[in-house]
Amino acid sequence: MSSVPPLICIVGHSNTGKTTFLEKLIAEFKRRGYRVGAVKHHHGEFEIDRPGKDSWRFARAGADAVCVSAPGKAALIKKIERELSLDEIISLLNDVDIVLAEGYKSANRPRIEVLAPQGKPVSNRENLICLVGRPANRPKVPCFDPDDASGVVSLLEKLFCRV
Amino acid sequence: MSSVPPLICIVGHSNTGKTTFLEKLIAEFKRRGYRVGAVKHHHGEFEIDRPGKDSWRFARAGADAVCVSAPGKAALIKKIERELSLDEIISLLNDVDIVLAEGYKSANRPRIEVLAPQGKPVSNRENLICLVGRPANRPKVPCFDPDDASGVVSLLEKLFCRV
Repeated sequence: MSSVPPLICIVGHSNTGKTTFLEKLIAEFKRRGYRVGAVKHHHGEFEIDRPGKDSWRFARAGADAVCVSAPGKAALIKKIERELSLDEIISLLNDVDIVLAEGYKSANRPRIEVLAPQGKPVSNRENLICLVGRPANRPKVPCFDPDDASGVVSLLEKLFCRV
Repeated sequence: MSSVPPLICIVGHSNTGKTTFLEKLIAEFKRRGYRVGAVKHHHGEFEIDRPGKDSWRFARAGADAVCVSAPGKAALIKKIERELSLDEIISLLNDVDIVLAEGYKSANRPRIEVLAPQGKPVSNRENLICLVGRPANRPKVPCFDPDDASGVVSLLEKLFCRV
């Protein structure tokens, strides 16, 4: 797909299982033949490289950007002065069919909220596609069990991936 | 610098100290106020992410591309079908002043060769800027001690970084 891929944010409080649910969505989209991009939002520092690796040594020596390139994979780690926007991230991931982002609950983007047990949604309903979990009250949007990634993917496919 | 940054390849046999010398070059360029990009070439597979991290979990779940975004740093790991060219890599690193790449000895690019002790250069002289080490025979290009990253940076600055 050469156009801009749709981006869906997976939001919710800490420890509600967002990462686990996102893994299930990725696996289900892959099973259906899609190319999937995933985004993790960090508010603070993060370390991704493995200590002792050459690329890690280059970053430690002060490199502002480190690229690791191999026939089947490429990695790029860059120091930046201001956080990338979601549009900039999507442009980096432009050869996938769908992008799933963990976090970005304030972004004005389609999103799925993963609820704590008996939890109430934190999102307002604008852009809220569905809930995942077992809400205390009857929700006004579709709600899926955390094990039903297939149901959520079918909904996303219908909304965003029709070709 | 908004134009395409110069790229220098650091080549040589295995275990000649290419990575260590590249670290010294990076540190010296940074000391002089440059923004530096570094490239590591892998011929086979590589793993860069740390097991258990959310981004690692997304990749393991099958994501074709994973982006980790924070206010001061961004990382992108992508599966690719064919290896990136050096031109593509430079375009990813375009906001640095100089790019230093480990490997790519067959590339038609300016390069520095790090020699084994008493070693002979493997590079032909075309594009060879200088040698690093203690060659068996008197070389026909400038030759620097492995501790003299400063001398090499001064030469590179003169050749490539005049503004």
